[in-house]
Amino acid sequence: MNLILLFESDFIRPNIVRLTDRRLGHVINVLRPLHGDQLTVGLLNGPVGHGTVIDLTSEALEMDVALDRQAPAPLPVTLILALPRPKMLRRVLFAASSMGVKKIYLINAARVEKSFWKSPLLSDERIKEYLLLGLEQACDTNMPEVFLRPLFKPFVEDELSALAKNTLALVAHPVAEKKCPWQVDRQITFAVGSEGGFIPYEIEKFVSLGFTPVSMGSRPLRVETVVPAMLARLF
Amino acid sequence: MNLILLFESDFIRPNIVRLTDRRLGHVINVLRPLHGDQLTVGLLNGPVGHGTVIDLTSEALEMDVALDRQAPAPLPVTLILALPRPKMLRRVLFAASSMGVKKIYLINAARVEKSFWKSPLLSDERIKEYLLLGLEQACDTNMPEVFLRPLFKPFVEDELSALAKNTLALVAHPVAEKKCPWQVDRQITFAVGSEGGFIPYEIEKFVSLGFTPVSMGSRPLRVETVVPAMLARLF
Repeated sequence: MNLILLFESDFIRPNIVRLTDRRLGHVINVLRPLHGDQLTVGLLNGPVGHGTVIDLTSEALEMDVALDRQAPAPLPVTLILALPRPKMLRRVLFAASSMGVKKIYLINAARVEKSFWKSPLLSDERIKEYLLLGLEQACDTNMPEVFLRPLFKPFVEDELSALAKNTLALVAHPVAEKKCPWQVDRQITFAVGSEGGFIPYEIEKFVSLGFTPVSMGSRPLRVETVVPAMLARLF
Repeated sequence: MNLILLFESDFIRPNIVRLTDRRLGHVINVLRPLHGDQLTVGLLNGPVGHGTVIDLTSEALEMDVALDRQAPAPLPVTLILALPRPKMLRRVLFAASSMGVKKIYLINAARVEKSFWKSPLLSDERIKEYLLLGLEQACDTNMPEVFLRPLFKPFVEDELSALAKNTLALVAHPVAEKKCPWQVDRQITFAVGSEGGFIPYEIEKFVSLGFTPVSMGSRPLRVETVVPAMLARLF
């Protein structure tokens, strides 16, 4: 937690916040500030700044807050991800959120196991929790949006074309000859399959909508490795 | 496991291997091949090929093995890593191994907690296990070397200069103005600190030996995210 994310509901008076939850625990156990110390804070979907500790007990932390800086710029990318297995989803959402992705579509694909869609980790609250941890890691405040699309065909046929319009559209394909490009100064739509990648029919669908299949090299990588790898290469 | 890694000791006759351990469990539970099916295999530190299933019971798998391809080329990089917390170490070693890193120095630094050096995860066998899982993921056979350097100063003063010689030497520094470069066609030595980076004294030491401080952007990232990110950007 490199930044304490604040919500409107934390404010008990103008500029004064009072925290009593998980964040209090972190402050007590890890940061251990003294009265008068300044902690990095940010307002959800708002500016970043610091909070001066005015009271800290085992019950609550009160800070006087000054928010004077913008959150870091988002990455100009829409990430389309075949739903990974739940344990991996958590790590991928954390990494994507910490790297500045603001739009993530979790879609179905032939290699996505049906049971993944029934995981309790797909609830709104759990997804928000992983994204929030990523924001706190990256000193960011702008909550990413995550969209669930449990049907491949309607998503690809009715929605994807508009999403990818006027962007550089790439689909990860482990056996593609073309490598994922480096340092691209454009809005990007990037689709990543499950372990083993998308099946040929799915790749064809993406290609028919103008996506270019690219690989990150000859080594098959885990989705949790591919996502930070390709984001760091592109931007 | 995209490749079954074989050891000399698996061979019961020329070209014939017999597996009875963890690998048998994976074959039975995940791959479920039929008699005559071919599985991707590779010999530790040797070539890659396929094994034709000639017998599969709950006791053992026997395959007729043909090794006719080279393992993927290693990345031309030496990774120097301030020892991460044990849980993260596992994931970083896995990711680095799966991306083709063959030389990793785990070093001490001011922000490394002393207790990390006492973790049982630092044993030879556990480290080999994580590296091996990375090789199996990436269809690679060449086992990376990991060196433990629990004293910062002797490592930097006596060893680092020779390691970095004739390479592009970079040290990750979250507040550096220079960004980590893209697509560098050179041998690289890359040092990555703990969460929060190296302290100024340590950065100065690296700089005095010709290292350039670089950042992956304004967002503080976890070590497990930084390592695949910077490898994918550089190569």
